[in-house]
Parts: sequence; structure tokens; C-alpha cells
Amino acid sequence: MAKIIGANAARLEHLNDEVTMYVYEELIDGKKLTEIINETHENVKYLPGHQLPSNVIAIPDVVEAAKDADILVFVVPHQFIKRICSTLSGKIKSSAIALSLIKGFDCAEGGGIELISHIIADHLEVPCSVLMGANLANEVANEMFCETTIGCKNTTDGLLLRDIIQTNYFRVVVVDDTDTVEVCGALKNIVACGAGFADGLELGDNTKAAVIRLGLMEMVKFVQEFYPGGKLSTFLQSCGVADLITTCYGGRNRKVSEAFVKTGKPFEQLEDEMLNGQKLQGPITADEVNFMLNNRSMEDKFPLFTAVHRICTGSLQPTDFINCIKGHPEHNENCH
Amino acid sequence: MAKIIGANAARLEHLNDEVTMYVYEELIDGKKLTEIINETHENVKYLPGHQLPSNVIAIPDVVEAAKDADILVFVVPHQFIKRICSTLSGKIKSSAIALSLIKGFDCAEGGGIELISHIIADHLEVPCSVLMGANLANEVANEMFCETTIGCKNTTDGLLLRDIIQTNYFRVVVVDDTDTVEVCGALKNIVACGAGFADGLELGDNTKAAVIRLGLMEMVKFVQEFYPGGKLSTFLQSCGVADLITTCYGGRNRKVSEAFVKTGKPFEQLEDEMLNGQKLQGPITADEVNFMLNNRSMEDKFPLFTAVHRICTGSLQPTDFINCIKGHPEHNENCH
Repeated sequence: MAKIIGANAARLEHLNDEVTMYVYEELIDGKKLTEIINETHENVKYLPGHQLPSNVIAIPDVVEAAKDADILVFVVPHQFIKRICSTLSGKIKSSAIALSLIKGFDCAEGGGIELISHIIADHLEVPCSVLMGANLANEVANEMFCETTIGCKNTTDGLLLRDIIQTNYFRVVVVDDTDTVEVCGALKNIVACGAGFADGLELGDNTKAAVIRLGLMEMVKFVQEFYPGGKLSTFLQSCGVADLITTCYGGRNRKVSEAFVKTGKPFEQLEDEMLNGQKLQGPITADEVNFMLNNRSMEDKFPLFTAVHRICTGSLQPTDFINCIKGHPEHNENCH
Repeated sequence: MAKIIGANAARLEHLNDEVTMYVYEELIDGKKLTEIINETHENVKYLPGHQLPSNVIAIPDVVEAAKDADILVFVVPHQFIKRICSTLSGKIKSSAIALSLIKGFDCAEGGGIELISHIIADHLEVPCSVLMGANLANEVANEMFCETTIGCKNTTDGLLLRDIIQTNYFRVVVVDDTDTVEVCGALKNIVACGAGFADGLELGDNTKAAVIRLGLMEMVKFVQEFYPGGKLSTFLQSCGVADLITTCYGGRNRKVSEAFVKTGKPFEQLEDEMLNGQKLQGPITADEVNFMLNNRSMEDKFPLFTAVHRICTGSLQPTDFINCIKGHPEHNENCH
């Protein structure tokens, strides 16, 4: 994203050239990562082999990086967001606008979920838009064609954000349905676990398609229940159906869930073996979502989300997965 | 389908047990196929290894098979539909209802497309509903869980049709948006060719997701233009997004289109080599659709359908495919 935003800032007349980029300082062979980036214009640790525009300046202090910014773009692991917001609070321009690229929910106090964009907006007292889509970082850096979705409530801001993001190969659609866009980016990982179980059980193409579709319908239902006002058309954007498809065919949640069924090993062990110990997002999100559904006695309205959660926590056998969704409420409505 | 309908007819009190099944007569090792089916309850030629219920009776004469039927289910290659309708015209119950499982358009006189369900309804003067979904025949016969969509304008008929089709593993959703359901089943094959080109060009997961999504948006647009009144929610049914996904990942249109890019061989040769000479549906449908779009000067509103058609007919190089959809009208609308 720094590569894209840097190039657009340099190219477009109505934007300042300078793009400051907060980089968590590390030593690489005894040299500071920010110095390496500012001298070689390459993030040798996290995106080696790709040249950043020279107007992108790496800065190790997040306050220094953000203080004069008109647009704040957040791309950090989501467990750091509250701390970064606390650090930045009161130290940014009051006229700034924010854009979050962070996928996944945060835990609300007392359980359940909180949207990252809401955390940013609340802590920094600025409007926060979101960007989600089928956007694997390496393919984007290689300038391979893809689409993305920006959710932004304000049309003027939306077009400005599109200007800093859109390129010939990275195509943006702006929708005003911010919460739906963000919710899609988190819930898809639960569905991908279900798709992985179906793959592990070797249930075939028809069943996998049904799992993905029923997952999509539960995403729609979830938004209707908890973020009312969302539009069905948003689910047809890149943040919805496109990101869901790639995640359910290519993603790590699918892959590890397939291995979970085939090997019988616990998730923790598979995370160690397959992800270098990184935590899988799907089971965590399924747990957060289940806390909300269970509290509201709504588990039976979301049988797929619920079954994925139960399988991930060991209270349901993967072989029982399909039985849990055979009587899905989607099939009980008489006529649509 | 004969297996499912036979079992439901036998099981349900409000349905006659007898299911007559028109079978085109062939000799198998000197014996008539209909006789083999009626003695062994197995279609040894087209679905070997699967037992049909004994109340399903194979009949080699289509008029004989249909004359007393209250429900006519059409499952024939679509090039035969007009001839069969001519044969049946005036020889069926006037109170009968029809259900078409036939995917693909028919050519309208003078070019363009005609829906199979409209042909049936017009020739036989009975209402014709449709059934479409991610329903590979072998997986259905193996009783693997899947979903399907029935498009039926009349609620009573819809519930009756659901009764004869739905089982524990074959789940039905009825919608009243018949034309959209049917159009999805044909247009998806054009999109699958695009997905195959993306695979052949090794463009990665992001690009493939964008191709599938833009294809879906052109399906929506096509229905808006030519079959107005369709609902967005229908595209989220099995006939829409689910069938599209399986077709773009597992289907033959995808596979042959990938080979077309990778080998440089013409489609005719690949059809001989990969499909025993059977014609691929995607290029045919792309041609029929292009006739309509071209006649109405609407090709630029459907750049993906148009590019697929041009690549299939050799007037565009596969390597130019992505350039044709980079400036897609979907990306030009300011805000949704």
C-alpha cells in the first residue's frame, strides 16, 4: 500500500508528495530497518524485492509519522490498534481522516466484538473509513490486476481516498456501507474454516459450494442483526463475494482446517507446524462471534458459524459438520 | 433426478407413486436400454452403479411417457427441446405444470437468445418453472449434500415442486424470480471461460477473484437490461454465486479455456481431445449473448462477456483479456 500511495501522492497535483510511514524499528544485520528503507527504498524484511517510491519516508516514531498527516492509513496487526490509538490520541490534526485496512474484529470489553474502525474513530475523534478486498499483498506488490472496496460514509472523503489508492491495476469501488465492508473482512475467515472442513472430509464440489453460500448468507444475516442498514449489493463487492472465494479456495484458514480434519492434530499444533506459531484468525473470530450469538440465544440462526466454532473448540466432530447445516434456516423459508 | 423424484413420489402421500421417465432408446449389448432399466433399475449407460427406485418406469416414447403426467420435468440436451415440444404439443394434460433443468440458452430466430423455459411454456401452453444450482450429477447421485434453486412464479406450484425435489441431502430454496434463475445457469459458463483464461495466464488469486466478481456483476447487469424485475438476492442463491464458484474452479469450461491459453490450440481441437468432441457451452453462449449486445451497441457495458467472446473467436489475444476489463464500468461509478 505504501508503494501505491507513494506513487499516487507523487503523481497527483492535489496531493502533497510526502508520505510518512511508521515502521516498528528493528535491527537488520546491525542496521536500523527505517534507515535501510530510507536509503534503499526497500523493506528488506517484510516485502523484499519491491521498490518503494522515494517520497515514502520510514519513521520509527508513530507520533512523528502521524502528526502532520491529513490522511491516516492504518495497516497494523489488530492487537496493536488500541495501544497505537492511545499513543496518537490528541497528537494528530483534528481535520484528519482515517482509513483502516485491518481485517478482523477486536474483543469488546465483556466479550463479543468491536469493529476496528469504530475503535479508531472513537479514540482519535476522526471519521474512519475501511478498505477490504481480495488483495493478497504479494500479488498487489507485483502489480497484478485486482479490485478492492472502500467503505466510506462521506462522498467527498470517499473520492479522495480512492485517489490515493486507485491505480491502473488496483481498482477501487467506493460504497457508503462501511460496517458491512469491515464485517465481511472478518467473518469470511469463519466460512473458510467450514470450507476447509468440507475439503478435509472430501465432500465434493457441490457441498463446498453450498458451505460457502450458506456462509455468505450467515454473513448477510449477521449484518442485518447487528449492523442494520447494510445493503445486499455490498456483499457483491470485492470485500464480499470475491474475498470470500479466494479465502475459501486459497487461504490459510481453509488450509489449516483441511489439515485439522485429515490429521486429527489440534489447531495449536497445526499453527506451530504450518504457520510458524501464528494464530489462525478463523477460530478466534468464530469464538468472538459465538460469544455474541450465545449470549443472545441466536446460535440456531447461524448454524454454520456455530458448527465451525464447536469443531474448532473440540465440542463437535468434523464429521458432524454437514448435519448441522442440513436443516439451515435458509431452506425453511417457503418462498423468497 | 429420477432417483430423487422416484423416492419422493413413493414416500409422499399426496403424490402418485408412478414416475414415467422418457429414455431415448438405444441397444446395449443387443438389449434395449429401457428394458434394462425396468428390469435392473439401473441406467447402465448414463449413470452406472446407481439404483433407481422401482416406481420409476423407463419409456422409449416421449408422448407415452408424458401423456398422463401432472408434472413434466425436462432434462434433455437443449438442442432437442424444440423437437420434443413439437412432439408433445396438444398431447399432454392441459392442467400440467413443467419444470426445466436444462442449462443454456436456445438461439432465437434472427439471432440472440431465447430461454428454454419460455420455449416450453409457449409450445406446450403450461407454466414452466426452472431448477438450477451447483448440482454435479454424480455427486447428487452419491447423496452428497448440496443446495439447489427452483424459480417458480406461483407459490403453490413452487411448494409442490419443492416436495418432489427436496431430500435430506438435496436442499431446495424456491424463489419467484424464474428468468434470473435460468439466465444465471447459462451466463456462468461465459464467466468460467474468463476464469480459465486467468488461470492459463497464471494471473494469481486476486485477479481470478476479480474476474469472477466482474462476471457476476455483468450477469446482474444482463438481467437488469433484458429481464427487468430480477432481484439481487437471487444471485446469492445456489443458482447464482454457488454455481458460478464451482464452475469457475472445477468446471470443464474453465479447464478447456485454461488449456486454450497454455497450449495455443484452437477450441475445436481441445474439444476433440478433452471432451470427446462435445461442444463447450461457454463459447456458444458468449456468441449468442454477443449477438444481442452487438446489435444493441452494448458491448462496452459488458467488457468481460465481450472479451471472452473475442478471445474464443480469435479476434483478441488471451494476453489482452485483463486490459479489456481494467476500465470496467463497475469502477467508474462514483459511489454506490
